[in-house]
Amino acid sequence: MEDYIGKLKDGTIKIHALENEMPVEEAVSVRRAFIEEETGCKFEKVSGFTIDIERAARKNCENMIGTVQIPLGIAGKLKVNGEYADSEYYIPLATTEGALIASINRGCKAITKAGGADVRIQRDGMTRAPVFSARDVIHAGNIIKWIDANTETLKEIAQSTTSHGKLTGITCFLTGTNVYVRIEFFTGDAMGMNMVTIASEKISEKICEETGAVLVALSGNMCTDKKPAAINLILGRGKTVSAGVFLSDDMIKEVFKTDAKTLMEVNNRKNLVGSARAGALGFNAHAANVIAAIFLACGQDPAHVVEGSNTITTVDQMEKGVYVSVTLPSLQVGTVGGGTGLDTQRECLSLLGCSGGGEVSGNNSRKLAEIIASAVLAGELSLIGALGAGHLARAHKTLGR
Amino acid sequence: MEDYIGKLKDGTIKIHALENEMPVEEAVSVRRAFIEEETGCKFEKVSGFTIDIERAARKNCENMIGTVQIPLGIAGKLKVNGEYADSEYYIPLATTEGALIASINRGCKAITKAGGADVRIQRDGMTRAPVFSARDVIHAGNIIKWIDANTETLKEIAQSTTSHGKLTGITCFLTGTNVYVRIEFFTGDAMGMNMVTIASEKISEKICEETGAVLVALSGNMCTDKKPAAINLILGRGKTVSAGVFLSDDMIKEVFKTDAKTLMEVNNRKNLVGSARAGALGFNAHAANVIAAIFLACGQDPAHVVEGSNTITTVDQMEKGVYVSVTLPSLQVGTVGGGTGLDTQRECLSLLGCSGGGEVSGNNSRKLAEIIASAVLAGELSLIGALGAGHLARAHKTLGR
Amino acid sequence: MEDYIGKLKDGTIKIHALENEMPVEEAVSVRRAFIEEETGCKFEKVSGFTIDIERAARKNCENMIGTVQIPLGIAGKLKVNGEYADSEYYIPLATTEGALIASINRGCKAITKAGGADVRIQRDGMTRAPVFSARDVIHAGNIIKWIDANTETLKEIAQSTTSHGKLTGITCFLTGTNVYVRIEFFTGDAMGMNMVTIASEKISEKICEETGAVLVALSGNMCTDKKPAAINLILGRGKTVSAGVFLSDDMIKEVFKTDAKTLMEVNNRKNLVGSARAGALGFNAHAANVIAAIFLACGQDPAHVVEGSNTITTVDQMEKGVYVSVTLPSLQVGTVGGGTGLDTQRECLSLLGCSGGGEVSGNNSRKLAEIIASAVLAGELSLIGALGAGHLARAHKTLGR
Amino acid sequence: MEDYIGKLKDGTIKIHALENEMPVEEAVSVRRAFIEEETGCKFEKVSGFTIDIERAARKNCENMIGTVQIPLGIAGKLKVNGEYADSEYYIPLATTEGALIASINRGCKAITKAGGADVRIQRDGMTRAPVFSARDVIHAGNIIKWIDANTETLKEIAQSTTSHGKLTGITCFLTGTNVYVRIEFFTGDAMGMNMVTIASEKISEKICEETGAVLVALSGNMCTDKKPAAINLILGRGKTVSAGVFLSDDMIKEVFKTDAKTLMEVNNRKNLVGSARAGALGFNAHAANVIAAIFLACGQDPAHVVEGSNTITTVDQMEKGVYVSVTLPSLQVGTVGGGTGLDTQRECLSLLGCSGGGEVSGNNSRKLAEIIASAVLAGELSLIGALGAGHLARAHKTLGR
Repeated sequence: MEDYIGKLKDGTIKIHALENEMPVEEAVSVRRAFIEEETGCKFEKVSGFTIDIERAARKNCENMIGTVQIPLGIAGKLKVNGEYADSEYYIPLATTEGALIASINRGCKAITKAGGADVRIQRDGMTRAPVFSARDVIHAGNIIKWIDANTETLKEIAQSTTSHGKLTGITCFLTGTNVYVRIEFFTGDAMGMNMVTIASEKISEKICEETGAVLVALSGNMCTDKKPAAINLILGRGKTVSAGVFLSDDMIKEVFKTDAKTLMEVNNRKNLVGSARAGALGFNAHAANVIAAIFLACGQDPAHVVEGSNTITTVDQMEKGVYVSVTLPSLQVGTVGGGTGLDTQRECLSLLGCSGGGEVSGNNSRKLAEIIASAVLAGELSLIGALGAGHLARAHKTLGR
Repeated sequence: MEDYIGKLKDGTIKIHALENEMPVEEAVSVRRAFIEEETGCKFEKVSGFTIDIERAARKNCENMIGTVQIPLGIAGKLKVNGEYADSEYYIPLATTEGALIASINRGCKAITKAGGADVRIQRDGMTRAPVFSARDVIHAGNIIKWIDANTETLKEIAQSTTSHGKLTGITCFLTGTNVYVRIEFFTGDAMGMNMVTIASEKISEKICEETGAVLVALSGNMCTDKKPAAINLILGRGKTVSAGVFLSDDMIKEVFKTDAKTLMEVNNRKNLVGSARAGALGFNAHAANVIAAIFLACGQDPAHVVEGSNTITTVDQMEKGVYVSVTLPSLQVGTVGGGTGLDTQRECLSLLGCSGGGEVSGNNSRKLAEIIASAVLAGELSLIGALGAGHLARAHKTLGR
Repeated sequence: MEDYIGKLKDGTIKIHALENEMPVEEAVSVRRAFIEEETGCKFEKVSGFTIDIERAARKNCENMIGTVQIPLGIAGKLKVNGEYADSEYYIPLATTEGALIASINRGCKAITKAGGADVRIQRDGMTRAPVFSARDVIHAGNIIKWIDANTETLKEIAQSTTSHGKLTGITCFLTGTNVYVRIEFFTGDAMGMNMVTIASEKISEKICEETGAVLVALSGNMCTDKKPAAINLILGRGKTVSAGVFLSDDMIKEVFKTDAKTLMEVNNRKNLVGSARAGALGFNAHAANVIAAIFLACGQDPAHVVEGSNTITTVDQMEKGVYVSVTLPSLQVGTVGGGTGLDTQRECLSLLGCSGGGEVSGNNSRKLAEIIASAVLAGELSLIGALGAGHLARAHKTLGR
Repeated sequence: MEDYIGKLKDGTIKIHALENEMPVEEAVSVRRAFIEEETGCKFEKVSGFTIDIERAARKNCENMIGTVQIPLGIAGKLKVNGEYADSEYYIPLATTEGALIASINRGCKAITKAGGADVRIQRDGMTRAPVFSARDVIHAGNIIKWIDANTETLKEIAQSTTSHGKLTGITCFLTGTNVYVRIEFFTGDAMGMNMVTIASEKISEKICEETGAVLVALSGNMCTDKKPAAINLILGRGKTVSAGVFLSDDMIKEVFKTDAKTLMEVNNRKNLVGSARAGALGFNAHAANVIAAIFLACGQDPAHVVEGSNTITTVDQMEKGVYVSVTLPSLQVGTVGGGTGLDTQRECLSLLGCSGGGEVSGNNSRKLAEIIASAVLAGELSLIGALGAGHLARAHKTLGR
């Protein structure tokens, strides 16, 4: 160990090259020890992992020194009436925000009591949008004409790069000399960014070859990946999912200590009019909280919480109750690849019965999406209910300290 | 154990009430065993934590069954020339996205070689915006008049709820019969949501008392918390931070294998024009990736990645090089409270020298903000550079034909 | 005439220079004749104006060849209960869209019958935001520090450029090396763009002189003038006005043939949720129609309809009725300058009793703003009512099946 | 006359019913006289029209009292290299904003000198999006399934309502229990709102009949008509047009007294980064000014300036010059219907050679769109050039110090 630390210090070995010299677990130890020595910092807990570190170092993380642990709790059971998820589930939630799980739990209780959450996926497709430059607007128009006329060729090229995915659509946008080509894929049970990126690169090469377009960037930001953007709110990205539930006047009174009119008013003044005046692209109470907690538990990409937060929550006054819904236009999830193969995360996916690829490709990731949307509904219901009853501050005071 | 599992099954004990019956660690075990039995799922790795579980159960997470582990790597050193962070740092990054740390690392290398990242905080204030209902637009106007005339009174009320924070501003927005009161606080080294919420409740009570306003919700979505919203992009929330660095033509060539003109073009066509056409509120390449990874490592709230993604990246052509900058209008961070007290996260904050409260209150959270902005700059530089190198190579190929 | 046409043809006189050679009316005739000869087009009606052409040529329009005539109708009376407009008004509307005036008229009838529109101005200030470039983010921060510390100096400079206006606020925004300085003015009865631009130029000179900032453009688009932008929706520009009215169940039934619940539902599903999903910055039915028609009648700048369309419409369910409101965050109007001095437009302003400067400077433009907001309320009510009546009829039919 | 004024006073005749009692021109006179008497206001100029008042009263305007006159000037010639407009044009501009025409004129001069503006229409379709309510999210999903499976039936229904238009696409959006059905039409030379609305009504009836959906409003704001909305910026509405021109370094210097680098910098810091930070949906300098002036001259709907202002302006640095472009995603124009039949407006359309229906239906409205986009390019060039010249001068002064 000392020997290697010395070599790191004098630069004979680079910090990222340790894995070439020794087994992964040892490399992680040496690196950690080196950093400790360099900085005087102690990593006593970071070093205490139980996950398969070799796999993590190979697939998920360079320059590893250990792991960070996030508390994991559960909410539920939550009854989900979906096409892919049709049962009652304990929801795994990794969070550091006190009171969050208790809140989601209350929503789950109400939904389950009310017969479960209706949930449906409206759309399923991951996108990538390379940007090309053209000589002038006429050239730009001609590039698009060529693409529109040769979609089948481009589909074949895409198909040659993957056996799991399928190109399902291409939409072109012209802005001056910029051509944005938004390519959409069915990506099975994978979240699919890598698959789409690789296929997009091949497609882009062909476009350049045939049209004289110049590829400027494989992502031209009309994808849009990990940035808040109306294009995802409107057209969707990943899964577009809606969940809803009818709550009777009696249940609203019993579980939430409030009434139908108040729930509507809170949703209206806060989630709709408040978001409107704020220039928002998300019209919900705290969808991001629920999405983040499940994402962390289940090995999803936490930066995709950005798109998840586009959620729109509605409360309709009905005879003798309300119908509450959430629509998540752009929920990006997978059950294979990325962080889903890490041991603790895989266990959480197993809890939901959707770890790994589904029997029918895509069904597991859709199941996960339906469960997440239902959990977001639980979270919205609970917070709107609490606001309705004037509960929020008390809840924080009690649980937060 | 069996005994308790039986009681959970027959409903004699509620799943969330186990901590009342036995020590926390045991409660977590019983709950986990119960869920395993109920679902047939095995939690072999989730159970393998090293963090102080009692603290986590008390402050961060209800219904705990264990922890999730996220791989932790480091990038750097990264030289930061800030007001609060003025040194070289190893950046802790918890991620499951392979290649991310390697990419950030390349950016760190370039920045450090270039003399470090300039970084400054332009604004520091956490906000909460309760929504009140008024009888009509005239009443709504009068509520605002009262608030504007009684800011000092409201400041005193706020002060009575906290010794750490300080009310720094109140801005009122009227939309029909809705009055949104955006209250801004300096919250020291805490991210501050709880502090602000508690103070806002007291303030709201006073406003209702004096004006006849009715408090509809303590958050009226003009805060805006965890939703993408232009109000945060424009006015900021939490810390507003900018980081920048000058890269000479030589360094661009050496580190990024591209040139100044190409970096500008990539930023223009992708981050500016592409985001514009997408109706975006974020004009960057992948700021959310970097923010998410540091947030997870350092115990920040992952749902706040949403606001972080509002980042704007610019590339200015200069004589003999480029000046690249990132501006994060709404970065919400703290070094006390929330997940910062968990053992692994605290170790990561220690690595940056900003765990816990600063000698001067607020300085540690500002230090963290400056480091994050600099790391985002590293991430942007690296990705734009990689895109530029690919672009340049292809352009040369095209021209060579 | 023939002589001059010959000179125009051979280029001896430039088309825009005719006014230097002869009286304005003659110049207009010569120019028109020349164009007719060049193009074979006949301007028989364009030539038939009655307004003072000399004034128009001097102040409003270069290269004149005549006028375009827009049909002018009236709606009303409309009862307005404002601070500046407190009477019943006939509303002048110049439009080519059949049925628009009839629709507004119906809304006026309902409002007047209901006792008039409550209306209040929440804010009054025209803005201009020059953009400066800085050397780096630190320099950019220092420029802002200097501005914040020298607001009084800048106010004095502004004051030296105008006796009608008054600088009321400066807000700085930093994005990388760009510094946007949003300067706000009270501009009396003028819409005020010119006044603000002239003052901003002087202020900018001082800023450059003292800080080394370089002025890139006198408008840096954070003003924001004539572009849809959340900054105007949130912070306002020109006048921020709200108007509202309570309609009893009886009146809803009598005038609109529908009921309270239906009006709410239409507003919710169309103006709030529909606009939300569309990524809109305007949450109304057709505010732009009403604003455009009054703007044309009253000599306002038609490009400012863009900002007017940011309007948010709300419908609150009340006991025994609804309260309907409109909030126009950014209504830019004036009663002096621009097109307000043209004869036909001045007559329309006179109809509203607000032509020219008010006895107290600013009161006439505020009166105009209050009347416009009330008319927008009339337009919204009428369209939502009509949609509601259709909806109700259909719903009955469906239920009857 | 006195007689009728008496009847209007005592309510025996309603003000809007005068046309039933006497010839239109007389009715307009009586109404005007009545308003004059009621208000003490004099309409000496409003009464001085030359357009065919009977036609206007029948098609464009209720409750007429006369016309408003807008000064009309011309800019040009402007050389346009379009598919539908391929010649040099004098551009008719109705405006009250002094200096606007002079500015546009300078841009025309530069473009024409540079060989003309490239211009292409990328998309042509008017949209209407009714909103339906469903019982729950599952029902909502089923409604969409039915629509997607029955597009041909709906096309036939649409076709039965018009011989001029053609349904070209249907896109459904689900948000909770709300179903938005965005129907797109080719509308020939008409702007087409009425045509689309009538067809949408028929289509909606069928949808309700077959699916149990309830039509809430014929426009559900996802059209989006006359409100700023990202959906139009992204997907387009009406015509999506791009125009561009290459300017050599020499011409930039000669016409605009500045250089390529400065034009780029102004566009970047103002139109791109400034608009970005403002949360804008328009990234241009003053497109709305040019659009409004041509719209008024040519009888277009001035409220559609809102969508026109979505324009994105780009400046690309090229070898030995710049390529400047504008992209108008949502330009709504027609050459038949609306205000295009008014005499003065028709004369302006004739000046452009596109009054009335084209030989091939749609070609005249496309010609108009191409000319407008080219004129917007002229306006952008001129303003950016002027800002650049100022900037350059100041920069030299600064550098000279």
